[in-house]
Amino acid sequence: MIVEKKVPFSYILNKVRYDLLFVLALSILINLAANRFTNRIPEMPLSVAAFLGTAISILLSFKLSQSYDRWWEARKVWGAIVNDSRSLILQLQQFAGTDAPLQRLAHRQIAWCYVLGRSLRGQPPLDGIGDLLQEAELERVATHRNMPLALLRQHGADLRALQEAGQLSWYGQVQLDATLVRLTDAMGKAERINGTVFPVTYRLFLHYAIYLFVVVLSIALKDVAPVFEIPLLVLIASVFFLLEKSAFHLQDPFRNRPSDIPVTAIARTIEINIRQLMGEADIPGPATPEGFYLL
Amino acid sequence: MIVEKKVPFSYILNKVRYDLLFVLALSILINLAANRFTNRIPEMPLSVAAFLGTAISILLSFKLSQSYDRWWEARKVWGAIVNDSRSLILQLQQFAGTDAPLQRLAHRQIAWCYVLGRSLRGQPPLDGIGDLLQEAELERVATHRNMPLALLRQHGADLRALQEAGQLSWYGQVQLDATLVRLTDAMGKAERINGTVFPVTYRLFLHYAIYLFVVVLSIALKDVAPVFEIPLLVLIASVFFLLEKSAFHLQDPFRNRPSDIPVTAIARTIEINIRQLMGEADIPGPATPEGFYLL
Amino acid sequence: MIVEKKVPFSYILNKVRYDLLFVLALSILINLAANRFTNRIPEMPLSVAAFLGTAISILLSFKLSQSYDRWWEARKVWGAIVNDSRSLILQLQQFAGTDAPLQRLAHRQIAWCYVLGRSLRGQPPLDGIGDLLQEAELERVATHRNMPLALLRQHGADLRALQEAGQLSWYGQVQLDATLVRLTDAMGKAERINGTVFPVTYRLFLHYAIYLFVVVLSIALKDVAPVFEIPLLVLIASVFFLLEKSAFHLQDPFRNRPSDIPVTAIARTIEINIRQLMGEADIPGPATPEGFYLL
Amino acid sequence: MIVEKKVPFSYILNKVRYDLLFVLALSILINLAANRFTNRIPEMPLSVAAFLGTAISILLSFKLSQSYDRWWEARKVWGAIVNDSRSLILQLQQFAGTDAPLQRLAHRQIAWCYVLGRSLRGQPPLDGIGDLLQEAELERVATHRNMPLALLRQHGADLRALQEAGQLSWYGQVQLDATLVRLTDAMGKAERINGTVFPVTYRLFLHYAIYLFVVVLSIALKDVAPVFEIPLLVLIASVFFLLEKSAFHLQDPFRNRPSDIPVTAIARTIEINIRQLMGEADIPGPATPEGFYLL
Amino acid sequence: MIVEKKVPFSYILNKVRYDLLFVLALSILINLAANRFTNRIPEMPLSVAAFLGTAISILLSFKLSQSYDRWWEARKVWGAIVNDSRSLILQLQQFAGTDAPLQRLAHRQIAWCYVLGRSLRGQPPLDGIGDLLQEAELERVATHRNMPLALLRQHGADLRALQEAGQLSWYGQVQLDATLVRLTDAMGKAERINGTVFPVTYRLFLHYAIYLFVVVLSIALKDVAPVFEIPLLVLIASVFFLLEKSAFHLQDPFRNRPSDIPVTAIARTIEINIRQLMGEADIPGPATPEGFYLL
Repeated sequence: MIVEKKVPFSYILNKVRYDLLFVLALSILINLAANRFTNRIPEMPLSVAAFLGTAISILLSFKLSQSYDRWWEARKVWGAIVNDSRSLILQLQQFAGTDAPLQRLAHRQIAWCYVLGRSLRGQPPLDGIGDLLQEAELERVATHRNMPLALLRQHGADLRALQEAGQLSWYGQVQLDATLVRLTDAMGKAERINGTVFPVTYRLFLHYAIYLFVVVLSIALKDVAPVFEIPLLVLIASVFFLLEKSAFHLQDPFRNRPSDIPVTAIARTIEINIRQLMGEADIPGPATPEGFYLL
Repeated sequence: MIVEKKVPFSYILNKVRYDLLFVLALSILINLAANRFTNRIPEMPLSVAAFLGTAISILLSFKLSQSYDRWWEARKVWGAIVNDSRSLILQLQQFAGTDAPLQRLAHRQIAWCYVLGRSLRGQPPLDGIGDLLQEAELERVATHRNMPLALLRQHGADLRALQEAGQLSWYGQVQLDATLVRLTDAMGKAERINGTVFPVTYRLFLHYAIYLFVVVLSIALKDVAPVFEIPLLVLIASVFFLLEKSAFHLQDPFRNRPSDIPVTAIARTIEINIRQLMGEADIPGPATPEGFYLL
Repeated sequence: MIVEKKVPFSYILNKVRYDLLFVLALSILINLAANRFTNRIPEMPLSVAAFLGTAISILLSFKLSQSYDRWWEARKVWGAIVNDSRSLILQLQQFAGTDAPLQRLAHRQIAWCYVLGRSLRGQPPLDGIGDLLQEAELERVATHRNMPLALLRQHGADLRALQEAGQLSWYGQVQLDATLVRLTDAMGKAERINGTVFPVTYRLFLHYAIYLFVVVLSIALKDVAPVFEIPLLVLIASVFFLLEKSAFHLQDPFRNRPSDIPVTAIARTIEINIRQLMGEADIPGPATPEGFYLL
Repeated sequence: MIVEKKVPFSYILNKVRYDLLFVLALSILINLAANRFTNRIPEMPLSVAAFLGTAISILLSFKLSQSYDRWWEARKVWGAIVNDSRSLILQLQQFAGTDAPLQRLAHRQIAWCYVLGRSLRGQPPLDGIGDLLQEAELERVATHRNMPLALLRQHGADLRALQEAGQLSWYGQVQLDATLVRLTDAMGKAERINGTVFPVTYRLFLHYAIYLFVVVLSIALKDVAPVFEIPLLVLIASVFFLLEKSAFHLQDPFRNRPSDIPVTAIARTIEINIRQLMGEADIPGPATPEGFYLL
Repeated sequence: MIVEKKVPFSYILNKVRYDLLFVLALSILINLAANRFTNRIPEMPLSVAAFLGTAISILLSFKLSQSYDRWWEARKVWGAIVNDSRSLILQLQQFAGTDAPLQRLAHRQIAWCYVLGRSLRGQPPLDGIGDLLQEAELERVATHRNMPLALLRQHGADLRALQEAGQLSWYGQVQLDATLVRLTDAMGKAERINGTVFPVTYRLFLHYAIYLFVVVLSIALKDVAPVFEIPLLVLIASVFFLLEKSAFHLQDPFRNRPSDIPVTAIARTIEINIRQLMGEADIPGPATPEGFYLL
């Protein structure tokens, strides 16, 4: 998540440098050609370019809206993970017997958040959670392909053990099971957003339409003095390319990019909340931004 | 689901080849006519074409958005199937007695996912699931018109048997029944998306509007040199036709097309998850793309 | 639901014939007037017409989108009815005692779907369900103004009787009651969509804007040769009128029109599912389209 | 809710008469000025007006869409009230003992619907419900600021009394409590829509943009003959003002206006349903429209 | 929440004064330059500006719509807090024993609303709630980083104590726990909206596009007389800047700004409701607006 208004210019430029180089080259070329072969380049009515630009801005707005919705849905999923992690602890404290070993469950829940975040980003899931899980459990989980799911199964096993040991009533188990179901849901939803490629052809045709528009516009403006026409073309094109790139980044929010959902920071918040609810003394500080963004 | 950025050009062209041939023929015809019968072809103001193009791009954007929503809803439904399949197993392991024959339920759940996917795509539903169901059950299910529903009924019968055998508490049965209800919902939702024809007239009028626009545009541009006008017309028309086709494919995501929701691959993921949760040793690998898409 | 791509031309034309006759008359009139009183008809800049057309296409797209949402919501409601009808049977089979008279409940559920569909369409609700209900019950239900609601009350009474007879545990009754609540919800939602008039003024002003646009466009195009101008005007106007009509039909999906939600066919599907789940032998076939549509 | 297509012209005109008078005055003024001081009034390119008109139609469409969503949400809330009122009665009949005094609860539920509707509209809440509540209860409720909430509390007290008297099992009470929670939700949602002012600045700037557009358009059209220009301007402006007014009315649907959600009529429907479910003999007729609308 | 239609002009102007000063300076500069260096300033076709303006109005409308959705979602969350606060009290009165010390829970619920509101706005959370919590509890809560969460934990502890003391059945505890889960959800949702920065690049590129548009428009209009051109430019630009600013304020609704969700006023409403439900005598009055807004 980008947290500062002052995003480095280099970061922005980097996103669209190839597209802009193409536009620059194109506009110079068309200008040169327009001077040389005056008759060969057709008169392109500006209203063709204008209509194309309008059409693309509409299509792009819808695309942006769909990408934004995906991003916001992903953020909501992680919000639900925050809420259900807290509810899990609150429910354990409300329903479990006084002798119940709740700390193991609480630490596993913290671990689950980190592991899920790392899995989504394609990083080694179990890095850095050695303190939160027992050695044996860590090894067992490592054999699973879907490690967050393996951790949820451990939650279930612990709840069953609590119930069998008389430390948890049926009522409590049912309420806690409902929370586990919601956590399973949240996990699956994040995986769905992460694993579903945005319809490729849709994106492709829109990208190609932007290029078509730039070419048409550069021909339509060929009689404007180059010193004005080239910057104008590059500036207009850059608006479109930058917005398209924004849409592209929003639609895949677990890629270890500055525009990601800050899953590590969220997991840290959950860790702080859970440790304080458990009455622990040693509470870590909140995650801090790395430069202009937070991961 | 198309997974690669490099979609074969032939695949894309195939989608709209008849429409583009029409546009090509039309533009050539209009150009010839414009040269021959200069006076007979009216002066078509370009702004009529431009306004029509803008209008169509707006209508098309909404259509794309509705098709996208249908596709995304279908994807969500299959995401819910993933989640509830996992929850079913986690809940069985949490609530059922230690002697309960859970494997039968687990394998039936895997079978259910494959059978539902094949049913939606109009393929023989029971192909390739022989190992997952008992012979007798397979035969009984085969007599049903809606085979996934028959499998859910078997789930219910097993849960009842578990409860009567003292292997499942009322509380557990209630929680598992809630999961069965959600699976029934997901199945029905997928069938609804699959069985509901997108409003035909709406689509028809939009398609006809694109043709009207192309004709008007080709008349409006008739004085541009053919060597520029024909490619321009074809390119602009292709953007519209390709986007319309994308919308068309998104709206029916269970048709055995490259743009489908990858139900077989998702069922395979569920199989992997369930087998690992059950502690089985022989885990299949994930589904791999066939060329540029995954089914 | 229109199921075929080849919708009869007469059906489409019928929808907008009065609007198109008006446009035809108008364009002829304006053309005649333009020839006679050259000076009296003002020069209408085409861009006024173009801007109006763009504005209307935006407003119309939103209107279409809202109508589509209503239609899709109605379809979802009937999808939920399918799902909850199946769940009701699955839950009865899971929770009720072996001696419980489930067939009566199952047949009443089938009847409920038909009765609800006919009520929504304003047809006599109880026609053709004589075999599904007992004589006495049929008579009692006929005294109610809201007959589907009366049937749900009978469901409740049966469940109560089952519980009192020891054929249904509290747990089962609670789960079945939750399903009854969802069926009550679905019924109320369908009634809401059916009974709520789409904001009349909104529709009226949009309709009037289309007429204003057509008049302005016909004046703006008055100098184009009539042989081209009249068809052009009629074609452009027809796109707008047809889309507006589509929106109008989508927004009221229980009116016994070809574009309706096919509630009878859906009820038939439910009948087939329920009869097969109950192990009945005599299963009717699915509903078949009447010409190009399915009701 | 406006129920007839033939809305009185005076009703429509009333909505925008001040705005249209302004437009009329403005266009006359500009025309006079254009004749007198030919050189002082600048040449306003029509495309500025056209672009402004397009921009406003987009903004207005979104505004309309948001207002429509608010209105539809309010309608959904009252739909939920219908459904949960019915469910409440069905659940009481299913779970309560045969001696339970259900009529008091049923009548209070009817009263609650009327009282909520009147509260939302700012009318004296308790008028006309004397027959439905006992004298003592009526007096107690009258001391509360939020009278519908006070009635829900009475529901809760009655359920508690039933449970303590052995007329209601814990299971029944839990199910009924869930219904009370949904009723509390619906009530709060209606209050939220009613009490939340639509963002004032957003509306203000849009209104001001429409005026800016009308001024620019009137200047741009100043050379068209007044006999055509003035009606044209008034007609175009009226489309925008009428749609804006429609949006304004939709966004606040509990203001005792013809475009309101018909809460009294809905409450009447609920009364009919509940009385018939309770087997009462004296059933009132449905609410009838007052002229062209239903309240 | 701005509650009056008459928003002070200074408030509105303040929002965009820097942007408008820039536009003013720019238009004067361009006009001067146009007079001096007639040949150096290129002919900018107005249709480039018009198309850019249309494109921006589309993008801006979507942005406004997304911001509005965030604001409305935030308002819904606080509506849910109202509803669940009421339900909590109603459920306590329905399920808890007659000797249960409910007042402590009721007052803590009031406190929670105020504390959550102040936390979201970055104000010292515990100010002004001294009367609602016991001294010891206040101190304990003050040690937590997330104080509303600490209060929910106290709720849980009290419910547990009630259950252990025989003042609350398992059924009641389960229902109340479900309400606590919903309150935890609402709290987390408000924190999510508050803590998630709206995609920075998206906003940045849109802002930059508005500037590009203003520059292009000012060049395109350079030949209009300055006395008309400058106000026109400023007025058009102000519409865009004001709407963008509205969007910006809507998207972050907990910033102690006039356009905020009025969380303090909502908390006051909850206080009034809860105190009246508890039968207290001393009820405070509702919050009153501070000038033109309510916080």
